[in-house]
Amino acid sequence: MRYTVFGESHGSAIGVVLEGVPSGVELDWDFIRSELRRRAPGQNATSTARREADEPEVLSGVFEGRTTGTPLCAVIRNTDTRSRDYRKLQDLPRPGHADYTGQVRYGGYNDYRGGGHFSGRLTAPLVLAGAVAKLILKERGVSVSARVSNIAGILDPTPEEAQRAILEAKADRDSVGGCVRCTVEGLPAGLGAPDFGCNVEGIFSQYLFAVPAVKGIAFGAGFGFAGMRGSEANDPFCLVDGQIRTETNHTGGVNGGITNGMPVEFEVVFRPTPSISRPQRTVSLSRMEEAELVVEGRHDPCVVLRAVPVVEAAAALAACEVLGIGSGAGAR
Amino acid sequence: MRYTVFGESHGSAIGVVLEGVPSGVELDWDFIRSELRRRAPGQNATSTARREADEPEVLSGVFEGRTTGTPLCAVIRNTDTRSRDYRKLQDLPRPGHADYTGQVRYGGYNDYRGGGHFSGRLTAPLVLAGAVAKLILKERGVSVSARVSNIAGILDPTPEEAQRAILEAKADRDSVGGCVRCTVEGLPAGLGAPDFGCNVEGIFSQYLFAVPAVKGIAFGAGFGFAGMRGSEANDPFCLVDGQIRTETNHTGGVNGGITNGMPVEFEVVFRPTPSISRPQRTVSLSRMEEAELVVEGRHDPCVVLRAVPVVEAAAALAACEVLGIGSGAGAR
Amino acid sequence: MRYTVFGESHGSAIGVVLEGVPSGVELDWDFIRSELRRRAPGQNATSTARREADEPEVLSGVFEGRTTGTPLCAVIRNTDTRSRDYRKLQDLPRPGHADYTGQVRYGGYNDYRGGGHFSGRLTAPLVLAGAVAKLILKERGVSVSARVSNIAGILDPTPEEAQRAILEAKADRDSVGGCVRCTVEGLPAGLGAPDFGCNVEGIFSQYLFAVPAVKGIAFGAGFGFAGMRGSEANDPFCLVDGQIRTETNHTGGVNGGITNGMPVEFEVVFRPTPSISRPQRTVSLSRMEEAELVVEGRHDPCVVLRAVPVVEAAAALAACEVLGIGSGAGAR
Amino acid sequence: MRYTVFGESHGSAIGVVLEGVPSGVELDWDFIRSELRRRAPGQNATSTARREADEPEVLSGVFEGRTTGTPLCAVIRNTDTRSRDYRKLQDLPRPGHADYTGQVRYGGYNDYRGGGHFSGRLTAPLVLAGAVAKLILKERGVSVSARVSNIAGILDPTPEEAQRAILEAKADRDSVGGCVRCTVEGLPAGLGAPDFGCNVEGIFSQYLFAVPAVKGIAFGAGFGFAGMRGSEANDPFCLVDGQIRTETNHTGGVNGGITNGMPVEFEVVFRPTPSISRPQRTVSLSRMEEAELVVEGRHDPCVVLRAVPVVEAAAALAACEVLGIGSGAGAR
Repeated sequence: MRYTVFGESHGSAIGVVLEGVPSGVELDWDFIRSELRRRAPGQNATSTARREADEPEVLSGVFEGRTTGTPLCAVIRNTDTRSRDYRKLQDLPRPGHADYTGQVRYGGYNDYRGGGHFSGRLTAPLVLAGAVAKLILKERGVSVSARVSNIAGILDPTPEEAQRAILEAKADRDSVGGCVRCTVEGLPAGLGAPDFGCNVEGIFSQYLFAVPAVKGIAFGAGFGFAGMRGSEANDPFCLVDGQIRTETNHTGGVNGGITNGMPVEFEVVFRPTPSISRPQRTVSLSRMEEAELVVEGRHDPCVVLRAVPVVEAAAALAACEVLGIGSGAGAR
Repeated sequence: MRYTVFGESHGSAIGVVLEGVPSGVELDWDFIRSELRRRAPGQNATSTARREADEPEVLSGVFEGRTTGTPLCAVIRNTDTRSRDYRKLQDLPRPGHADYTGQVRYGGYNDYRGGGHFSGRLTAPLVLAGAVAKLILKERGVSVSARVSNIAGILDPTPEEAQRAILEAKADRDSVGGCVRCTVEGLPAGLGAPDFGCNVEGIFSQYLFAVPAVKGIAFGAGFGFAGMRGSEANDPFCLVDGQIRTETNHTGGVNGGITNGMPVEFEVVFRPTPSISRPQRTVSLSRMEEAELVVEGRHDPCVVLRAVPVVEAAAALAACEVLGIGSGAGAR
Repeated sequence: MRYTVFGESHGSAIGVVLEGVPSGVELDWDFIRSELRRRAPGQNATSTARREADEPEVLSGVFEGRTTGTPLCAVIRNTDTRSRDYRKLQDLPRPGHADYTGQVRYGGYNDYRGGGHFSGRLTAPLVLAGAVAKLILKERGVSVSARVSNIAGILDPTPEEAQRAILEAKADRDSVGGCVRCTVEGLPAGLGAPDFGCNVEGIFSQYLFAVPAVKGIAFGAGFGFAGMRGSEANDPFCLVDGQIRTETNHTGGVNGGITNGMPVEFEVVFRPTPSISRPQRTVSLSRMEEAELVVEGRHDPCVVLRAVPVVEAAAALAACEVLGIGSGAGAR
Repeated sequence: MRYTVFGESHGSAIGVVLEGVPSGVELDWDFIRSELRRRAPGQNATSTARREADEPEVLSGVFEGRTTGTPLCAVIRNTDTRSRDYRKLQDLPRPGHADYTGQVRYGGYNDYRGGGHFSGRLTAPLVLAGAVAKLILKERGVSVSARVSNIAGILDPTPEEAQRAILEAKADRDSVGGCVRCTVEGLPAGLGAPDFGCNVEGIFSQYLFAVPAVKGIAFGAGFGFAGMRGSEANDPFCLVDGQIRTETNHTGGVNGGITNGMPVEFEVVFRPTPSISRPQRTVSLSRMEEAELVVEGRHDPCVVLRAVPVVEAAAALAACEVLGIGSGAGAR
């Protein structure tokens, strides 16, 4: 199964094409819409005020409520696109954003309005694709769930702690980062391989790094492995109801690039939202001289809360690849 | 450029095939051999006693000392393969190793002797491929260097601190983990894309997770981003000798999945060597009952020191992909 | 550059996503529309009466009239979708069509109305993608042109001969096949490689077999090579204006899988339209007994005339791949 | 399953790496050697006098006589490499050969001796890989067989006719082309898809065009479709022993890019061997002036007879891909 997200923040629509979808999967639209709502902005004081209808239209690949197995295209129209002068961002690239790299990469031809193709809004079609993936996984007994594991340096924060830290940053016209921890349950042992391009950690990482603002991924004990000894880190094998399991799951469900039957667990880190309304130092590209920039407009002081369903979506798509769904011409 | 590592620890040979190599690259064998020596075991008290000649033989893709542009195959013969009864490992899988997952994945047909295809020895052909990649990168002004950034929880340890921590663990019949930090200098701005499969972090991560024992990767400030504010994390743009640079490099040289012209920096974490000589709990697969296992034989109490050139090799191959070397039929 | 065509004949829309498009390409919509018109049905007595507006809407990847370099999605709404009982086709699969194979492949969940995803209508977004490819090629001095080289067994027929043969078949409630010959001019020498997945003939063939009803492809002298001697078949080298050329071009511009600087020439064969209104023998899938079928509805007695721009489109996309356009993360 | 052939005619070895091989396949070496012998030269008066031991050495991926599921590398040493001055070919490229295109493609760095990587000798590792593929297919009830269907324009020649035509050409210091027709039996209905990269014809064609000297491929009635009417070309469905079959197989077992359960049938055309000992016109690349060339040395006046097992090998590898063998991380 292969997904391609397309669209720009202020273009006519955003969307996704999914290839290799198994046929006959019943699309539960209540579920899909609820997933989109989990990601939607404007839900509380800590997120951007932009309202998005985010009602997707399926153009292909679905017939009588079920997937046909042919490419599924779904689009979401862009409606609330305020017109502002974004052209300034082309001259004064925002630190931490992709304004500068996008301009170099695309020779200045990219649609810079509202972040264009780099906009966090592009995670809506990703969540949509992930919702389809979750429905496919559900039929195979696989589930994906994620949670906020760090906000502003606070480990496993309560909602109150998280909100307080975010609002404090907002009051300072600043932003905060954090982490999301994700678990994929139900993958059988024996999927993946140690080789380049086939190992489970590498496959998951490629999907997760396609989520904007993700800067790191680690499995199981993750960077904590650095301070552990082998005797702590090794997960002893045991029998549970006659099944081979491990007593602990420090390895995050993967040994030698192959699933071991325990839940696949990983954590990703999100950088603080680069959009802050404090003055920042940048360079005027037209005059090639240093300059100061104050970023205006709506933006989240923290994307981590809304990122939870996005991480789940990326993980669900990765799990489909690990299961070999839709790969190869022989797929049926 | 695509690499495929093949071989088993106790088979007749290990090796690598490199496709998409540019033609005309002069292979500096003093350099290639020195890279292999950096990885070779048996160099000091902290590493395994196995001696490997590791003298590669090039079978194809090189003519009169330069790459031809056709697939390059190099093999390293296995010589020091002590015969022991590895069959026990098939029945009593070692915790933390791929004995169990390999057996499930390959239906019990994999060559389990000495770790087989999962053996750390397979990093020798990876280093060889990486050395070729470094020579290609050198012609393009790109260099790769890595260093140990953590041993046994000690940040940026001195050689003495590292050795002490490792020997302490060895004395306890235990092992330690650690981190390697890597920098790729010279990549121009504008490489990569935000999309799945094209973003620079995702590309690097896929190469790095193919290194055995790597369990996490993070770019720039990495997991430290969780506790940072946007005002700290954003790298202000500045001019250096008329060139656009950033004052800091918290983002690790990548914004929106695209290089920004600053060094690409990342850190990987290595789990502690799973091979420890303490008694461990496991399961007898033949009798399906819990059992105890004592792993014998030679093994490193810490792979992190020897992993430095392996990380560099993986990063060099990733940098070639990011540069588009050898990709596409139109490559010349 | 990678294209994905989506949609079903009687769904809400058909379309295409193009990834890896170079940025800054000016989209000449008069040209793109004229290409779509060349393929459109209902133009003369020999083609189906279905009228299609075929006016595409670009959803992404274009800004201020030029490509942005991000995924380009264009859709064409389906309007003239007559409702008929296509369900009969599910029970009585039409010989020569994909009714049966589609049903097996997609477990009976595919949208069978009007051929669904197998419909020739899906060549409209392919022509659209090909038109974009032609504009990209034009900037690089490469052009693609095709012509009908065989209709109903008549070699290089005049328009009158072609029309007469088609109308004769139509009068017989039958259909005819034919060939299209295509030339790609301007590709420099040295593109491609002999290896699997890289050779120029293999790349072109993969694009051309994605055109419905194509059953064969041959380069240069093609199947005529079987009756030639080496002394005839070999193209002698010569100098033309100081450039290395060949006197003849029997090899079709490719030697050893690599372009030689001469035009790339190939021919594809189209099977006769399977939709004929004569009674045909088939099997009732529900009753598992042999049955007779009379196919009703509009259909072309010959697709070859309309296939010319489709062949060009597929060839243009192939030429982009051969040139390495949009391949690799390093593409700019 | 992915194969990579490496090596040069006069290098130290040629070989192949196979990735994605299912584990546990018993390698019948009598069979594999017999396949290599079918391709080996020097067997009769019509083929080159070069003797090749062609005894392969397996370096990896096999344990106790069965495949392990990890990359399988096998090499064949080059022994009978007569030293001649091949350098002349670099200055005076042989018409019909890849001397010129190879030199342009690889910037003059390719190993030109004896055809280098373009040599027909590279089909030995391809046959080896194909033999492994056949053993895999055999377990799944799929078989591949090919035969000479045309020599020097003679359709379905008897061995005597074929030999006479070849020897006549040889006496004229010339060469002849021909065709090979191949049948793959046992593939179930429902494999493949109409989409680019997934359709069965496109997959087979990519494998077949990687065979040197193949210039065309056509399925079922092939180019004969051009002169057929739909009423002849359509294969009526029927029931055979309660199974859905078609009365004829003009479509060659594929409809809409998907297998229909009938044998997959195709024909490939081979150009006449470009190596002929008649004087030919070429260009001196060093002096950039037209010149005459007489090619010396051993060469086949017709490769078609020896190509039969090569076509089967390519078809067997294609059939594995169509069956989805070894594709995806989830492959087991």
